[in-house]
Amino acid sequence: MYRIKQFELNTWIDTHENHETLDMSTTVSSPPLSIDGLVDLSTDPEATRRALSLNSVPLTYGEPNGSDSLQHSIASLYTNSKVTSECIITTSGAVAANHIVFSALIRPGDHIICVYPVYEQLYKISQALGAEVTFWKLDQDNGWSANMHHLHQAIREDTKMIVLCSPNNPTGAYLSSTVQNSVLELAKAHDIILMADEVFRPMFHSLPNGEMEPVSFLESGYEKCIVTSSCSKSYGVPGIRVGWIATLSNDFLSRFTQIRNYTTISVGLIDEIIAAEALSSRCRQPLIQRSLDFAKANLTFLAEFVAKHPQITWTPTRASTSTLIRLHSKDGSPLNDHDFALEFVKANNILFCPASLCFEEYGQGCLQGYVRLGIVMHPETFRHGMEKLAEFLEAGSGLQ
Amino acid sequence: MYRIKQFELNTWIDTHENHETLDMSTTVSSPPLSIDGLVDLSTDPEATRRALSLNSVPLTYGEPNGSDSLQHSIASLYTNSKVTSECIITTSGAVAANHIVFSALIRPGDHIICVYPVYEQLYKISQALGAEVTFWKLDQDNGWSANMHHLHQAIREDTKMIVLCSPNNPTGAYLSSTVQNSVLELAKAHDIILMADEVFRPMFHSLPNGEMEPVSFLESGYEKCIVTSSCSKSYGVPGIRVGWIATLSNDFLSRFTQIRNYTTISVGLIDEIIAAEALSSRCRQPLIQRSLDFAKANLTFLAEFVAKHPQITWTPTRASTSTLIRLHSKDGSPLNDHDFALEFVKANNILFCPASLCFEEYGQGCLQGYVRLGIVMHPETFRHGMEKLAEFLEAGSGLQ
Repeated sequence: MYRIKQFELNTWIDTHENHETLDMSTTVSSPPLSIDGLVDLSTDPEATRRALSLNSVPLTYGEPNGSDSLQHSIASLYTNSKVTSECIITTSGAVAANHIVFSALIRPGDHIICVYPVYEQLYKISQALGAEVTFWKLDQDNGWSANMHHLHQAIREDTKMIVLCSPNNPTGAYLSSTVQNSVLELAKAHDIILMADEVFRPMFHSLPNGEMEPVSFLESGYEKCIVTSSCSKSYGVPGIRVGWIATLSNDFLSRFTQIRNYTTISVGLIDEIIAAEALSSRCRQPLIQRSLDFAKANLTFLAEFVAKHPQITWTPTRASTSTLIRLHSKDGSPLNDHDFALEFVKANNILFCPASLCFEEYGQGCLQGYVRLGIVMHPETFRHGMEKLAEFLEAGSGLQ
Repeated sequence: MYRIKQFELNTWIDTHENHETLDMSTTVSSPPLSIDGLVDLSTDPEATRRALSLNSVPLTYGEPNGSDSLQHSIASLYTNSKVTSECIITTSGAVAANHIVFSALIRPGDHIICVYPVYEQLYKISQALGAEVTFWKLDQDNGWSANMHHLHQAIREDTKMIVLCSPNNPTGAYLSSTVQNSVLELAKAHDIILMADEVFRPMFHSLPNGEMEPVSFLESGYEKCIVTSSCSKSYGVPGIRVGWIATLSNDFLSRFTQIRNYTTISVGLIDEIIAAEALSSRCRQPLIQRSLDFAKANLTFLAEFVAKHPQITWTPTRASTSTLIRLHSKDGSPLNDHDFALEFVKANNILFCPASLCFEEYGQGCLQGYVRLGIVMHPETFRHGMEKLAEFLEAGSGLQ
């Protein structure tokens, strides 16, 4: 990865965040949970407290592909009975899961199709490994919806992999069950690997009445499907670095295990214990509900807020822990989001991730004026940040 | 890393180890420590207990390059005043540290010199990235000592990096201060990056009377020097996945941070807290002393043991947490170590790592008959394993 491009999102955050910064773009629920917080949320606090008694845990390397208990907790997230513990490889967060998948499977000259806009890791590693990436652009003018016709057009004879992120980071869009099924059929017909980063499942906070949640791509039973996920986003405990890769393909599992040997050996034992508990039937639903409740409250507020502040526009989204809002100058033209975010963090120590810097691939040019807005922080914090934003836009100092 | 070779050592262990297996090749002290064990070892148990009160720690991503406290603990391991917290990047174990270094710096066509035999990760990643690797072979007939003449011969005009592992895995050899200085002079003269895996520092258990421990390569102040290490080996807590990269080069640090963004984001917060405590002045020395005491007791036993068992030969080594012993049939010829290890684990559920499988690069051919022997397990366990080995060799069933 000698020539890999800069990771703009992380570099932006690392450069501008300090201990007091309010990060309005965070995709992780806040205030953060602790072990005590997990116990409080649990439907059986005593059992959770016992499970999280860590003082006598022998600090060995642990199991090569993850503890039995954690693999079992993860496998139980999927209803397809073919998805057993053996289909799961635990990793140090979803970032390591994605890295392992691309490192194991991509070689120079491969053709990849990747949804866009998206978390940059999902295509920049492949580019650094010498793959050619075609973007499947979500339809910006139509709520970032996916157009199957465009995906069909992007397929080539030598297309090796389709990379998805649903629910999507940063847009908050998701692929409907119908689109998922169409993508699966297309992948099968062309024998293409389907790689889905599902780290924002099951954060479907605002589905239309009567619409069922789309299931994980893994439920399809498609042998060439790979999904990655973690405890960081929907479950809200990023401080434990536990993610996973799940696939039905023994060939892929064996390749991933090889790469994992070279990058990981094993995931932290204590982190795996906490992760197994977070994903257990005692804690899983309360954790998700906490984020869903925050998201619903914040988006109700946001809808009213943008109605009152014409310099902020927003197309409602239905999933994920973030959404995009667009900022405008008083004459209605989109702001330079990068300049805005720099000025704003300097003035208020409140951080927004400017989309044209953090999610724009060079030359694509559609994200001018957008910033990512996290929606799973405590509603009081969310309101405070939004009010500061409105004040700043109203004052209009130095913005163009 | 599409075409990376199999990681033989890990594959061997994962294939043959179960929960009851006695691993006689382990490079980690056993029985394993727990948080309670750390408290018991500490010179100030109450302070350690307080530092390891984890229940209210907010489980956030933490600091991008490691917590201030951990970076400080690590920097304080080096006496050169130029080595500050800013020179440290924490990683998920030394395995991730090494992976990040090679991923950031190696490109196709690079020429690398790597000490041999050695932990295979230290050259197989570079090979997979398209580098040409020349081995600097330790002198097997002379206690695995390093011959500077051979290193001089290996240098080419385009040599980019010299990769070292001292104390060495698996041999237990180490580079003396004199050799270290010569290597440094050579690297400087040819402007070559010096990368040293120092995960077995400071395990110098049997230095000759009056000989000082060689210092870390980092103490040299050579800008192009990179060292990696972790809490797993000398400190004996592999269950927390905390390692680090240290270098004085801002250019390297910035490249490593970029790769780390794509592979890690951050190291587990709880693991970083435990690591900072393990490396603190309260715990560091007791942890090292525990391993040193085990090593000394085991090697005293080993010297007497091999004198009584001619089918086992051993050249005493002075450092690291492992050594190599060589196994022979009754006629004195070296055993097929791979066949032996397979038979032995099947018969006794005691695991040895066969050196010709786990440490032999194809075509080098010098490790026939050797197995890696861990020397920092509890002496009772060590004796039990060695006695079982002697019994098995004496019976001679199926061995050739």
